[in-house]
Amino acid sequence: MIVSFSVTPLGVGESVGEYVADAVRVVRESGLPNRTDAMFTSVEGGWDEVMDVVRRAVDVVAARAPRVSLVLKADVRAGVADGLTSKVETIERHLDAGS
Amino acid sequence: MIVSFSVTPLGVGESVGEYVADAVRVVRESGLPNRTDAMFTSVEGGWDEVMDVVRRAVDVVAARAPRVSLVLKADVRAGVADGLTSKVETIERHLDAGS
Amino acid sequence: MIVSFSVTPLGVGESVGEYVADAVRVVRESGLPNRTDAMFTSVEGGWDEVMDVVRRAVDVVAARAPRVSLVLKADVRAGVADGLTSKVETIERHLDAGS
Amino acid sequence: MIVSFSVTPLGVGESVGEYVADAVRVVRESGLPNRTDAMFTSVEGGWDEVMDVVRRAVDVVAARAPRVSLVLKADVRAGVADGLTSKVETIERHLDAGS
Repeated sequence: MIVSFSVTPLGVGESVGEYVADAVRVVRESGLPNRTDAMFTSVEGGWDEVMDVVRRAVDVVAARAPRVSLVLKADVRAGVADGLTSKVETIERHLDAGS
Repeated sequence: MIVSFSVTPLGVGESVGEYVADAVRVVRESGLPNRTDAMFTSVEGGWDEVMDVVRRAVDVVAARAPRVSLVLKADVRAGVADGLTSKVETIERHLDAGS
Repeated sequence: MIVSFSVTPLGVGESVGEYVADAVRVVRESGLPNRTDAMFTSVEGGWDEVMDVVRRAVDVVAARAPRVSLVLKADVRAGVADGLTSKVETIERHLDAGS
Repeated sequence: MIVSFSVTPLGVGESVGEYVADAVRVVRESGLPNRTDAMFTSVEGGWDEVMDVVRRAVDVVAARAPRVSLVLKADVRAGVADGLTSKVETIERHLDAGS
């Protein structure tokens, strides 16, 4: 499955980039396929391995902030390989075809 | 922590109430404090117990649908008891005070 | 349509209840059907009227906070009346039926 | 502000790429800065122009599907320019610094 998630610390001021960086580091060190953009980090794998990464990303932020907000969207679909790339390619193909 | 989540099956038509009911049943049978409204089911507890419930709620829907979309928002805050009730009470108190 | 949304101010500390109360007040004064629980406020109506409420709820929080995070989930479906109540009733009916 | 959103049609089967492509086309033709990955499309601008794009993206999908689910996360912060790029750069800078 693919999980896109965002971790936001509360009680540490309005600039949260260094906290988010801690969470992104956890994701990258996991070895799972991942992408980070301005709003979400996406990671792909099975439920246990992905949710373990999300949990550790939340924990590393919670270690430095009194409150953490987690927003997560998951696409659970059997038999999809390399969804992080293939889903975007499918959309681009439809756009190219003008469908 | 409190987790609010929504499970949506794809590929089973536009009426998804019976699938959502399966997910809600899993939550209610968990014994954890929970609430269901028109858009989300909220459940309160520790990470492991709450995420185990979410996983089983996703699994019960995925058993009958080829694809499942999960949307989740969590409020992770140490030392908050009975947040499902107390958070709403706090808001009502502020509203009553006209603050 | 039904919109469930959550407004979180950043840069004002970890206790955000009074800011959230400002947003809920905007929703209640709108006259649209609405519900507030521990994680989201739901409001029902047409796109323009609902999004106008969401915008004003964000604005009232942004007036007192340097940064605001908005999370929103909408269920857009023609021909559904009183969805805030009817969707929950549908789920309860399925649960009662043991389906 | 930056808005990341996802539009999912219900009642059209489990493969929704061509519907999502319609929504992405609306975003790209808007002229606003935007990015699409496997889970969300992000677009940056003022409230009115961004929400007009989101509405038209929902409408184009709703024209072909009986029900549409919209998930949206917004980062509302005054004085941030080119947030789609600068937020990622900030995170990378923190990661490089090992902070």
